[in-house]
Amino acid sequence: MEMKLPGQEEFEASSAPRNIPSGELDSNPGPGTGPSPDGPSDTESKELGVRKDPLLFIQLNELLGWPQALEWRETGRWVLFEEKLEVAAGRWSAPHVPTLALPSLQKLRSLLAEGLVLLDCPAQSLLELVEQVTRVESLSPELRGQLQALLLQRPQHYNQTTGTRPCWGSTHPRKASDKEEASLREQYQNPLRQKLPPGAEAGTVLAGELGFLAQPLGAFVRLRDPVVLGSLTEVSLPSRFFCLLLGPPMLGKGYHEMGRAAAVLLSDPQFQWSVRRASNLHDLLAALDAFLEEVTVLPPGRWDPTARIPPPKCLPSQHKRLPSQQREIRGPSGPRLTSAEDRHRHGLHAPSQELQRTGRLFGGLIQDVRRKAPWYPSDFLDALHLQCFSAVLYIYLATVTNAITFGGLLGDATDGAQGVLESFLGTAVAGAAFCLMAGQPLTILSSTGPVLVFERLLFSFSRDYSLDYLPFRLWVGIWVATFCLVLVATEASVLVRYFTRFTEEGFCALISLIFIYDAVGKMLNLTHTYPIQKPGSSTYGCLCQYPGPGGNDSQWIRTRPKDRDDIVSMVRKGLSDFSSVLAILLGCGLDAFLGLATPKLMVPREFKPTLPGRGWLVSPFGTNPWWWSVAAALPALLLSILIFMDQQITAVILNRVEYRLQKGAGFHLDLFCVAVLMLLTSVLGLPWYVSATVISLAHMDSLRRESRACAPGELPNFLGIREQRLTGLVVFILTGASIFLAPVLKFIPMPVLYGIFLYMGVAALSSIQFTKRVKLLLMPAKHQPDLLLLRHVPLTRVHLFTAIQLVCLGLLWIIKSTPAAIIFPLMLLGLVGVRKALERVFSPQELLWLDELMPEEERSIPEKGLEPEHSFSGSDSEDSELMYQPKAPEINISVN
Amino acid sequence: MEMKLPGQEEFEASSAPRNIPSGELDSNPGPGTGPSPDGPSDTESKELGVRKDPLLFIQLNELLGWPQALEWRETGRWVLFEEKLEVAAGRWSAPHVPTLALPSLQKLRSLLAEGLVLLDCPAQSLLELVEQVTRVESLSPELRGQLQALLLQRPQHYNQTTGTRPCWGSTHPRKASDKEEASLREQYQNPLRQKLPPGAEAGTVLAGELGFLAQPLGAFVRLRDPVVLGSLTEVSLPSRFFCLLLGPPMLGKGYHEMGRAAAVLLSDPQFQWSVRRASNLHDLLAALDAFLEEVTVLPPGRWDPTARIPPPKCLPSQHKRLPSQQREIRGPSGPRLTSAEDRHRHGLHAPSQELQRTGRLFGGLIQDVRRKAPWYPSDFLDALHLQCFSAVLYIYLATVTNAITFGGLLGDATDGAQGVLESFLGTAVAGAAFCLMAGQPLTILSSTGPVLVFERLLFSFSRDYSLDYLPFRLWVGIWVATFCLVLVATEASVLVRYFTRFTEEGFCALISLIFIYDAVGKMLNLTHTYPIQKPGSSTYGCLCQYPGPGGNDSQWIRTRPKDRDDIVSMVRKGLSDFSSVLAILLGCGLDAFLGLATPKLMVPREFKPTLPGRGWLVSPFGTNPWWWSVAAALPALLLSILIFMDQQITAVILNRVEYRLQKGAGFHLDLFCVAVLMLLTSVLGLPWYVSATVISLAHMDSLRRESRACAPGELPNFLGIREQRLTGLVVFILTGASIFLAPVLKFIPMPVLYGIFLYMGVAALSSIQFTKRVKLLLMPAKHQPDLLLLRHVPLTRVHLFTAIQLVCLGLLWIIKSTPAAIIFPLMLLGLVGVRKALERVFSPQELLWLDELMPEEERSIPEKGLEPEHSFSGSDSEDSELMYQPKAPEINISVN
Repeated sequence: MEMKLPGQEEFEASSAPRNIPSGELDSNPGPGTGPSPDGPSDTESKELGVRKDPLLFIQLNELLGWPQALEWRETGRWVLFEEKLEVAAGRWSAPHVPTLALPSLQKLRSLLAEGLVLLDCPAQSLLELVEQVTRVESLSPELRGQLQALLLQRPQHYNQTTGTRPCWGSTHPRKASDKEEASLREQYQNPLRQKLPPGAEAGTVLAGELGFLAQPLGAFVRLRDPVVLGSLTEVSLPSRFFCLLLGPPMLGKGYHEMGRAAAVLLSDPQFQWSVRRASNLHDLLAALDAFLEEVTVLPPGRWDPTARIPPPKCLPSQHKRLPSQQREIRGPSGPRLTSAEDRHRHGLHAPSQELQRTGRLFGGLIQDVRRKAPWYPSDFLDALHLQCFSAVLYIYLATVTNAITFGGLLGDATDGAQGVLESFLGTAVAGAAFCLMAGQPLTILSSTGPVLVFERLLFSFSRDYSLDYLPFRLWVGIWVATFCLVLVATEASVLVRYFTRFTEEGFCALISLIFIYDAVGKMLNLTHTYPIQKPGSSTYGCLCQYPGPGGNDSQWIRTRPKDRDDIVSMVRKGLSDFSSVLAILLGCGLDAFLGLATPKLMVPREFKPTLPGRGWLVSPFGTNPWWWSVAAALPALLLSILIFMDQQITAVILNRVEYRLQKGAGFHLDLFCVAVLMLLTSVLGLPWYVSATVISLAHMDSLRRESRACAPGELPNFLGIREQRLTGLVVFILTGASIFLAPVLKFIPMPVLYGIFLYMGVAALSSIQFTKRVKLLLMPAKHQPDLLLLRHVPLTRVHLFTAIQLVCLGLLWIIKSTPAAIIFPLMLLGLVGVRKALERVFSPQELLWLDELMPEEERSIPEKGLEPEHSFSGSDSEDSELMYQPKAPEINISVN
Repeated sequence: MEMKLPGQEEFEASSAPRNIPSGELDSNPGPGTGPSPDGPSDTESKELGVRKDPLLFIQLNELLGWPQALEWRETGRWVLFEEKLEVAAGRWSAPHVPTLALPSLQKLRSLLAEGLVLLDCPAQSLLELVEQVTRVESLSPELRGQLQALLLQRPQHYNQTTGTRPCWGSTHPRKASDKEEASLREQYQNPLRQKLPPGAEAGTVLAGELGFLAQPLGAFVRLRDPVVLGSLTEVSLPSRFFCLLLGPPMLGKGYHEMGRAAAVLLSDPQFQWSVRRASNLHDLLAALDAFLEEVTVLPPGRWDPTARIPPPKCLPSQHKRLPSQQREIRGPSGPRLTSAEDRHRHGLHAPSQELQRTGRLFGGLIQDVRRKAPWYPSDFLDALHLQCFSAVLYIYLATVTNAITFGGLLGDATDGAQGVLESFLGTAVAGAAFCLMAGQPLTILSSTGPVLVFERLLFSFSRDYSLDYLPFRLWVGIWVATFCLVLVATEASVLVRYFTRFTEEGFCALISLIFIYDAVGKMLNLTHTYPIQKPGSSTYGCLCQYPGPGGNDSQWIRTRPKDRDDIVSMVRKGLSDFSSVLAILLGCGLDAFLGLATPKLMVPREFKPTLPGRGWLVSPFGTNPWWWSVAAALPALLLSILIFMDQQITAVILNRVEYRLQKGAGFHLDLFCVAVLMLLTSVLGLPWYVSATVISLAHMDSLRRESRACAPGELPNFLGIREQRLTGLVVFILTGASIFLAPVLKFIPMPVLYGIFLYMGVAALSSIQFTKRVKLLLMPAKHQPDLLLLRHVPLTRVHLFTAIQLVCLGLLWIIKSTPAAIIFPLMLLGLVGVRKALERVFSPQELLWLDELMPEEERSIPEKGLEPEHSFSGSDSEDSELMYQPKAPEINISVN
């Protein structure tokens, strides 16, 4: 199960770092983005001028069969990675990182240096090209004719479309027109062609041994205008480069390796950049030398050259490799971490210009509204995608389960003052209103967790003092709304900058544990009250219902993100989008098929408040003395802290830069909405709502946009989230409608829904860096993963930090579970204090790796300068490369 | 769960092939090998002359702190792989494949070319060495003095032993003697030192920027006599090489990278070999150039040079890299597969000189006895190892479970003619006798599987004809023994060469499935008859007892073979040796603690035949007509085929070359023993016994010998199996004694023992290539692993082969389960026929990859020559490297 919470970058630095390659392909941004009113500009492509060049498809045609049956055969191809034709197996190898032998590169260099180099060759057809290339003095006219005929011979491509056995085009030029036509049709039907972006060009390397040549013949051609050279290439693409490497037979696989070297060179983005701009042989060789300067060398005794390296999850950053003139524009790219701004730019921390204090009353709120207003139409248009439909189904089920579960809990805890119907109604009303008004409409409101605990305490308090609960609760709500409005007015939300990963992870771990605890607890309760038994069977068999097929199936699908892009990738992607729904349906079907006596989803059938005899509006005083309305301010203060913390930590998590949100956050606006809804729900006697961390993350993750992988071996690129208000809105409308959907919903067994909960909890918990560090506690140093933080922080310090977090989490859990739960909000605030105190225990550098810096620390860093260790260790800067790579969010919390 | 059956080489060719590196270290072969009377000579070390040289530990000391606080610090070290000092974290990085930049190698070359090269330098101390090295014309006397002082300064090593924070030796030379002493103590206490084999030498590279130098200073020294150079190196080792790379400050990390380049060069086995024999600068540079010729180059655009590559599971074979004079002795190393002998030599097929027909009556048997006799004393001495103790416990429990389970089954099936007591007694007598006499004493006899099915059929047959069962069975046994003796006399065992992987895997899959089916079936039966319930609790809770903690825990431990070698590796290794026993104890403890009403192991309490009223000797006729003793020959013929197949397939599997058995096999002798035991057990009315595939494999695996990893990052080397007769003997003596151990054994719950069965079955099934191919059936081509066979055989052909195997397996299973089971032996023989028929469907090349060749095919290959594909594809030979690497057996069937 692979899941990331935002900001929980893994800092893994093994051979396969996690990041998605910064796509060199002109990938379509997908539907639904549209021009942004004032969104961030596409800095990536601005920074990296190299990417503007068209994508290059390179093919190696080898001359085989000397001397009897000379023919050209395609034996390798490159887009990002190398694919080798497995002749015997009749298939392309898996894409892999090309490895070369140094001598082949050197031989290629000398062959090119002595050979023919035509830059901006005006040839318009293969015939013209061949004539130009063979115009070499060393060739006698007779040989030239032979060579031309050979070069014009149609090469044999392995044809993927025609089934199982490798199918080669015919060698003989009889029935040329028919053949030619068939060949062209094949070129067009090549599945690779549909994957390559429009504008892609081809480069062809022809290499081989030719007995009648007395000396090697090398030629490198850049065509002025890319032109389709007949059936030279496997896919029908205009050719830009043409490289010919022929010579008398030599020992070993000389020309094969030289051809591969030329192809690999051409597939290198930097070499491509240079050679597209080269004006003479000298430039070409300089580009080759620059390539050689930068190659990575593996020693022969420690690396088997025949091993195929699978494509890394992260391609090297190309910005260091920019040609000098390009680099100068950007200024020196310092490898050191010099300022907080630098880190912000690289996505290590939520940038949140939204969190600059304006200094005016409600200034932040006004700014939020101004920022979000222009996006409002697109917030509905951007939802027009099938994925949103799946997200709605998934989140709807999670929300309904949540409403049922916690509604039931609340009903029990408050003697029916709250109940399942209130839960449904409140969720629908509050959620929909929030989706319509909020700054971050991806948020899903719910009444889970700490607020629930607080309400339970409030009820027992009011019972102890024989208070009329709902009126008392109304006043608490009024006070909370007031306090929250004060917090909005004073722009208190800018304080969320003090919520570092330490706080977020502590909170997230707590919520996840509550999810898991509740799901497992419910399941165990079920097995006691509903022993699993087939109707009609009298013996008790042990049929192990796993904790929710939803969770399990989904996880399985989740861990195989690669599956998405396949021959049947529309099918597969579609299935995986609906994997959670399918898992639920499967669970329901299995349940129905086996006729298990499982408890089913129970939805109230009548639309009236759970507490008998009350209307929909709560009377402001009831039987309570008037001064209780003032005394309610005290618990309201605690609740306000809780709501502020709960709401804002979730908002910080949801708005992290890794999600590449285009439409900005709205911390003040969100809090304002929560305050208004607090008032509304208190008046109506509905549950209170704040943002739900885990479900909101699942919601966002179900709305990930990813590029389709174009080149073989390329991983899909994370493009962003479908930011819109519609999915949330529909979810809550459906939730409201569910009050009348009892006949349909009664087929859903509760264990299946608990499975969703369990999965969400486990996924969220396993995502955070904290969990990784807890694992480190139990792992001998030798087997620990090569995490970047372990390269920079002594292990004992890491353990100390983890232990402190564990203690905090334990304390929070204990407080939550005891009567002291009333001070829980303060303890949550205490997390920030503990984090502040950690500055006395850990150095800023350690905190930078283990957590993040708080605002003051960030300012202090550039003044203090760097730790002495940096000046000593000359090679530490290599990490910074990894640290600076744009992190993909890998929320991955959900199932599609 | 990682498990290999012999001969099921994986042919995986991804970046991390499976094989264990051919150790370059002089690893101690471990106790219990001793000189072999006529065992195979150590061809490895003969072939590879390079390995005779001592192991080299290389250390990079960098000059840091210019200009104020110059000091030497160790920043990297190499044995097989590179370890980098993580300065901030205060620990050594995980070992990784060193990667270099090409320019650093080139700069190193030119620095060495212009620098000082002293080969066979007679210096006896660091002082002498430094004097020699600084005797350079370009240095003024003053500078020379400064430089000498600098070089004599004690370098600071990161000290692993002194706890958590990096501890550096003092920079100041005050209290020199104390410091020196402490430093030397640290050198000795270095944990690395205990790991390096005796005779290891050190090489030190000193590199850095030195402002007062006007021009670079390079020196390479090979000491004539290796000498401990004070505290220059982190570990106290005599130094052989010394390399100095100093120069004026330059841009970037020039000297750091150059120093790394020098260290990596020195850690290359081939460069080491050359430079130890170099007689002048030219030789040194030639060695460097040879290194450069062979490096693997990764293109900068496709590989991040800062990524650390974990040590591959398989180091490149060095035999291709031998210096030419060495290589010539061995003759040209043809990359092609030219003859069966070649493949035998490389371990693709059991070599079995034992399987040459002598042409004389009982010739094979006599040869077997002659071959095994000299090993007889060592067969007992070699058992003196703690591992054998663990193996005994593990196999004992498996054997007892087997005896109980199948004894019970047999008792049911034969109305008590056989029973648990007979099963115990027979297992003990037959097993012990076999261990004492057999050709392959690692074999564990049992009465599982097909023989059991046959006996059941025989009983119902005798009942149908109202025969006295035991006397009839005696005659069947007599006939079987006779037939088997005929087979021994005629050396029929040489026919096992026709048992290819196709047959073995079919048989093994069948047996594994029977194991799994029985274990699961028994478990399900248990849950019906013994609903899991705490005593005193009235509600039925669903406490899911997983199928055997034995299996599950063990698998978990199994999949982490790396764990073995750790700081607490004796502890860990010990635990993992006993993991299965621990899992069983844990299961028993949990059972006892929870007081579960599980069925326990039931051992008979009285020593008498199960069938009331019979003595220990079976009367030859009983109430049967005499001619039934002749008619018994017919079923005996079928049973003989079955026993021959069952026994010999198992024997072939156990004796494969991958296990590196030293003492040879004894196919004829084994069959002879089985025949004699058949007679004995028939006379005594005990069950019949043949070799048990799965338990015998588990037995062998529990006796694996592995080298301790010496160098960081090195994987333990498979050395062989502890071949001896004692473990089996003790297992069977214990089994016999168990008849009287009922009071102790009654605490073992049966589910735990079924867990062992299930694990063994699943492990055996998941090991075979067949299972991998079945998975391929369900996998889209894109996600298939990079198996070598997929590079060479078209996917549809692979699928066809798998499908045929599946059909065969299904037929066998059906026949086994129906009344037609009597012809099961013939069907097993039919497998060989099917395999033979496959020659008409598949080409020899395909069969070579999918299976193995039968004797005739092998002969036909060199005549026919190679398929045309080979002559076309110039680069296919790269696979042969992988194919030829000595396979580690990876039996891995068991739990330790």
